[in-house]
Amino acid sequence: MSSIAELTECVRAFAEERDWQQFHTPKNLAMALAGEVGELLAELQWLTPEQSAAVMDDEQLGQRVRAEMGDVTIYLVRLADVLGVDLVQAALDKLEQSSRRYTVEAAYGSVAKINGDHPPA
Amino acid sequence: MSSIAELTECVRAFAEERDWQQFHTPKNLAMALAGEVGELLAELQWLTPEQSAAVMDDEQLGQRVRAEMGDVTIYLVRLADVLGVDLVQAALDKLEQSSRRYTVEAAYGSVAKINGDHPPA
Amino acid sequence: MSSIAELTECVRAFAEERDWQQFHTPKNLAMALAGEVGELLAELQWLTPEQSAAVMDDEQLGQRVRAEMGDVTIYLVRLADVLGVDLVQAALDKLEQSSRRYTVEAAYGSVAKINGDHPPA
Amino acid sequence: MSSIAELTECVRAFAEERDWQQFHTPKNLAMALAGEVGELLAELQWLTPEQSAAVMDDEQLGQRVRAEMGDVTIYLVRLADVLGVDLVQAALDKLEQSSRRYTVEAAYGSVAKINGDHPPA
Repeated sequence: MSSIAELTECVRAFAEERDWQQFHTPKNLAMALAGEVGELLAELQWLTPEQSAAVMDDEQLGQRVRAEMGDVTIYLVRLADVLGVDLVQAALDKLEQSSRRYTVEAAYGSVAKINGDHPPA
Repeated sequence: MSSIAELTECVRAFAEERDWQQFHTPKNLAMALAGEVGELLAELQWLTPEQSAAVMDDEQLGQRVRAEMGDVTIYLVRLADVLGVDLVQAALDKLEQSSRRYTVEAAYGSVAKINGDHPPA
Repeated sequence: MSSIAELTECVRAFAEERDWQQFHTPKNLAMALAGEVGELLAELQWLTPEQSAAVMDDEQLGQRVRAEMGDVTIYLVRLADVLGVDLVQAALDKLEQSSRRYTVEAAYGSVAKINGDHPPA
Repeated sequence: MSSIAELTECVRAFAEERDWQQFHTPKNLAMALAGEVGELLAELQWLTPEQSAAVMDDEQLGQRVRAEMGDVTIYLVRLADVLGVDLVQAALDKLEQSSRRYTVEAAYGSVAKINGDHPPA
């Protein structure tokens, strides 16, 4: 099973082979990331919450959703590579920070904001 | 070094401890993902491409960018977990597909569309 | 009642008084637009569809949603001004185009794609 | 020249003729809005700031950018209609609020944050 580090290498090689680094400024990569997230949203936008929970049961729709998530991942990983950010560690650090603000006691069953921030996952 | 699978477990546990699964429909998670990508864009929006390439050199700005990328990763991983999508494999499959459309010969140094699709990384 | 043309003038004057035109490249404005749309999504992301239909009944939440929609409008109007696009006409032209693809007969009560495009409003 | 009120009527009629109100919850419309903003970003993502300033000089690219801005406008106007928000007034109110925080003296030629908020247009 491939790791995020291996994926990062593959995406970097893909870009370098095509001499695309010139286009990969952090601004451009962030825009591309937003574009792909938009495409993902478009697959889900008219579904009810229940239908959205069942997307992977529909072969064609499931494939499209999976493909868009693949595109989102490609750009996120590429942006992280260009900026030298360890995505997993950055995520773990945010979770740690969130766990101290959204303690189980304070946040159980509720997504009400605490200290002006939207609750994280 | 933590892996994406370990991160996925942490994010799932974080959500379950707080009884937040009820809020984690794919639609909601996709919206949250878009919201966090928006926050990332906001950190970069007024910078020139060159300034954006140097964001990590500024301690405060670099921390904010890293934090937003952490938030994006949290929601992407949570959405993938809820849908049962292997992000790394989905990304590798998209890269493979893209490599056949955007061959090195056809796409070297150019991001012109081939077959109506925006070039990937 | 103010018009979109008057708003455009106000936004332009606001930017020029502050010598902000230098930051208002179409790329930057598109990123800012996406950032504000992200903030709007964040206000709605954890709500059920029914709760989202009632947002304006909650004074604080309604004000935040209205404020975010104001921000989205500011950037959309500014981008249109910088590019010389008439937003209302562009929208009417798209609606006209969509009405020929998504005829009432073909699209009644259904948002299934026709000709590979997501149904518009 | 059509006004935003006339556009709102057209978009509403378009949706009602097709019995699409059922799909037009504020959440869905916000997702659709984000999807279209993503498509707009995708048209600009690989351009330099200078190239982005010249997009309307390229006939095909200019048409695509205009079309995406039309789609963004359609969904923004539809969301505003469903929520009962006057977009122009909401925008003017935000500009007024911003003018008091980002005074010309404090904000001239600079987009540095004041009071923790990203500078608006």
